[in-house]
Amino acid sequence: MATRLPDAEFRLRLDAVRGRLADTDADAAVWFGATSIEYLTGFHHIQTERPVALAVAPDRVEITVPRLEVERVEGNDRIDAVHSYFDYPGGKPVETAVGMLRGLGAESVAADADGAPGVMGYEGPALSEFLDVETQDWVARMRWAKTDAEIDLIRESAKWANLGHRYLAEYTAVGAHPITVSQRASTDASRAMLDALGSEYAVRTRGDGPVHAGYISGAETALPHGHTPNERLSEGDVLITGATANVDGYRSELERTMFVGEPSDEDEHYFELMLEAQTVAIDAMGPGVPVSRVDQAVWDYFKEQGVTDLARHHVGHNVGMGGHEPPYVDRGSDAEMAPGHVYTIEPGLYTDEAGYRHSDTVAVTETGTESLTYFPRDLESNVVRG
Amino acid sequence: MATRLPDAEFRLRLDAVRGRLADTDADAAVWFGATSIEYLTGFHHIQTERPVALAVAPDRVEITVPRLEVERVEGNDRIDAVHSYFDYPGGKPVETAVGMLRGLGAESVAADADGAPGVMGYEGPALSEFLDVETQDWVARMRWAKTDAEIDLIRESAKWANLGHRYLAEYTAVGAHPITVSQRASTDASRAMLDALGSEYAVRTRGDGPVHAGYISGAETALPHGHTPNERLSEGDVLITGATANVDGYRSELERTMFVGEPSDEDEHYFELMLEAQTVAIDAMGPGVPVSRVDQAVWDYFKEQGVTDLARHHVGHNVGMGGHEPPYVDRGSDAEMAPGHVYTIEPGLYTDEAGYRHSDTVAVTETGTESLTYFPRDLESNVVRG
Repeated sequence: MATRLPDAEFRLRLDAVRGRLADTDADAAVWFGATSIEYLTGFHHIQTERPVALAVAPDRVEITVPRLEVERVEGNDRIDAVHSYFDYPGGKPVETAVGMLRGLGAESVAADADGAPGVMGYEGPALSEFLDVETQDWVARMRWAKTDAEIDLIRESAKWANLGHRYLAEYTAVGAHPITVSQRASTDASRAMLDALGSEYAVRTRGDGPVHAGYISGAETALPHGHTPNERLSEGDVLITGATANVDGYRSELERTMFVGEPSDEDEHYFELMLEAQTVAIDAMGPGVPVSRVDQAVWDYFKEQGVTDLARHHVGHNVGMGGHEPPYVDRGSDAEMAPGHVYTIEPGLYTDEAGYRHSDTVAVTETGTESLTYFPRDLESNVVRG
Repeated sequence: MATRLPDAEFRLRLDAVRGRLADTDADAAVWFGATSIEYLTGFHHIQTERPVALAVAPDRVEITVPRLEVERVEGNDRIDAVHSYFDYPGGKPVETAVGMLRGLGAESVAADADGAPGVMGYEGPALSEFLDVETQDWVARMRWAKTDAEIDLIRESAKWANLGHRYLAEYTAVGAHPITVSQRASTDASRAMLDALGSEYAVRTRGDGPVHAGYISGAETALPHGHTPNERLSEGDVLITGATANVDGYRSELERTMFVGEPSDEDEHYFELMLEAQTVAIDAMGPGVPVSRVDQAVWDYFKEQGVTDLARHHVGHNVGMGGHEPPYVDRGSDAEMAPGHVYTIEPGLYTDEAGYRHSDTVAVTETGTESLTYFPRDLESNVVRG
C-alpha cells in the first residue's frame, strides 16, 4: 500500500546530492530548510526559531538539532550522528553546526543558504563567518520531478481528498454553517482515512486530522484568497472548495466551484468558461511542453471569450511536499514540463459577485498526463439541491 | 466587545514607524513581511511566492500586490494607492515596488529586508540593486509589547481556547480516537464562538474554524514536538493538549497535561514538579525582570529536584500575532520583561515514557502579571475518569 515513502527513495536522494557534491570543490553539503532535510532523511520537524542543520559528507550524514528534537531524530538510521544545542537564543545553533562540519573535515561547504532562515525572530551569524560557503538549490530543483513512489503518495492523498470533498457536498445545505460543514467533512474524512489505513498510516499531525476539506462562500469567492464568512448558506450561494490529505508528507489539491441550489444564468456562463479553460490547459500539457505555453493557451482562450479582465492569476503550480512549489504555470516562466512534474491546474474567473475555479492535480507522464484528482468537474455534479 | 482591533491602533502604529523613519536618512520605509504589513495596515494576506511590499512615506502609504490581492486591499482606507503585477514569475514584483517607491520620491529606503523573502521558490532581485537600502526591524521590535487593545484580543482568544479545552476534556474517554476528539472539540468550539460573536466576529479563516483544540497522546508526549498517533485512547494514557483561537489575527496558548484514568505515582510525581516549575516561573515574572532570570529560576528548581536531564527546552516565548515571537524566556537572552509583553510559560519535563507540560499565556502588567488563560492547572482537574 502506498502510504509511506519507501526506504530506497532516501538512498537515491542521498546518492544524487552526493553526486552533485562531487562536482564541486566543497567538502560537504548543508541544508537548513526543513523540507529539504525531510526530503533527504525522512526526519521531519516544525521549523521554528530553533535552527536545524543537516550535513551530507561523502560518507557520513550528521545533523544539528535543538535539544527538544534529539529523541525524534536519534532513531533515524539514515543519520550517523546527532549534535545538539539546548535552545535558542542561549544555545549556539550555527556554531554547533560549524563544529559538526569541522568534525567531518569540512572547511568548505555547499549550503542551501548562508545560515539559518530568520523565522520567528531567529537572528544568527552567517555560515560564511566560519567556513567557505557556496550556495546550492539542489533539493529544491530535484523536487520538481517526483518519482513513481512519490506520485503514488499524491494519488493516495487524492483519494482521501475526494472523500473529504464528497462529505462537503453531502453536508452542504441551505442554512448550514460553511465552517461547520468544512470541519465536519475534515473530521469524518480524517477518521475514515485513519481507520482504513490503520498501522499503515504515517503519523503526521499534532492535534489535527490528516484530511482538510472546506470552502469559502458567497461574495468571498470573488477573491482568489477570500475567507469563509460567518454566514449560513443561502440558496444561490457560490462555493469554492478545497480538499487535501497528508500522506507521509505529500499532498494533492482538489478544488471545485459548487452551487447551493440552482446556479443563475451568469453562474452557468462563467462556470462553463472556467471549465473549458481548465480543459484547454490540461490538453496543452505534456512532457517537453513549456509551462508558459499552457498558461498562454488559457490566456488566448480568455482573450477569445473577452474575459481577460476577470482573470486574477496564472494557471497553477507544482505540488508535492509543499502546497505551492515551483515551477509555476506562468507565461513568464522558462521552465519546461517533464515526466514526474505534478501540477495544479486551476485557471479562474472572478466577477464582482463570485469566483469560478476548479483545481485538479495533474501528473506529467512519459507520454502525456494523468489527473490524480477525479471528483466530477461538470456543472450538474457540483450543484447541491435541497 | 473586544473582537476587533480598533482603528486608532493602526494610526498609532503608523505614527510610530514614521517617527522612526524621521530619525533616518531614508525617504520611505518598506516591509515585505506579511505580519508586519498586517500590523501596520490591517491588510492580511497569505504569504506565498508572490511578494507584497508596503511603503510608508511621511505622508502616504502605498502597497504593491499581485493581481489576485487587489480587490482584497482596495477597500483599505489606510492605504492611499495600490500597485500590482499580474503574477509570479511573469510579473516583476520588486521592480513594481521600486516604481511605487520612486513615485513617492524615495531613492533611499529603510526596509525590513533587502528584497522579498524566498518562500515557495520565489527568487528575485535585491532591493539594493535599485535603491539605497538600510535594514530595520522596527515592527518586529514594536510587537514585543502589546497595547491594552491587543491584550483584550488575546484575552478573548483565551476564552474560546478554554471552551475548546473544556470540550477536549468532555469528549476524552477510553476507546475514543485522539484525532477525532481533537477535531470535534475544534468544530464545536468554533461554532460556539461564531454563533456567540455573530457579526462581531472578524473573518479570518479559509475552510476551517477559528478555534483549534487538540492533543498528542501516549508515548508521543515524551517528545516536545510529538504527534498524535493513530491509536485509540487507553487507560493510563498521558495527553498533552493545545488550544487556541484566532481573534482578529491574535492568539493565546493554553496547554495542559491530562490523564486518561488514574495517573501512576510516577505521573503524579512529574506532574507536580512541572506544576511547581510553572508556578516558580510565573512568580519570578514582572516588569523589569530579565527573561533570563525567569528561565534560570526554573532551571535552579529543576537542579534542586535533580531533574535537569529531563528538561528539553526553555520556559516560553512571546505570543500575539505569531505563535512564537521573541523575546524568548531563555537563559541566554538579554531581553527584559516589560508591561504589555505576553509570554507562554511552559516549562516541561520529559521521561522515556511521557511528557509533562502545561502552557499558560501570561501578560506582564505595570505592577506584576495577569494570566490570560485560566483552565484549572491542578492534577485533579486534569484527570479524565470514565
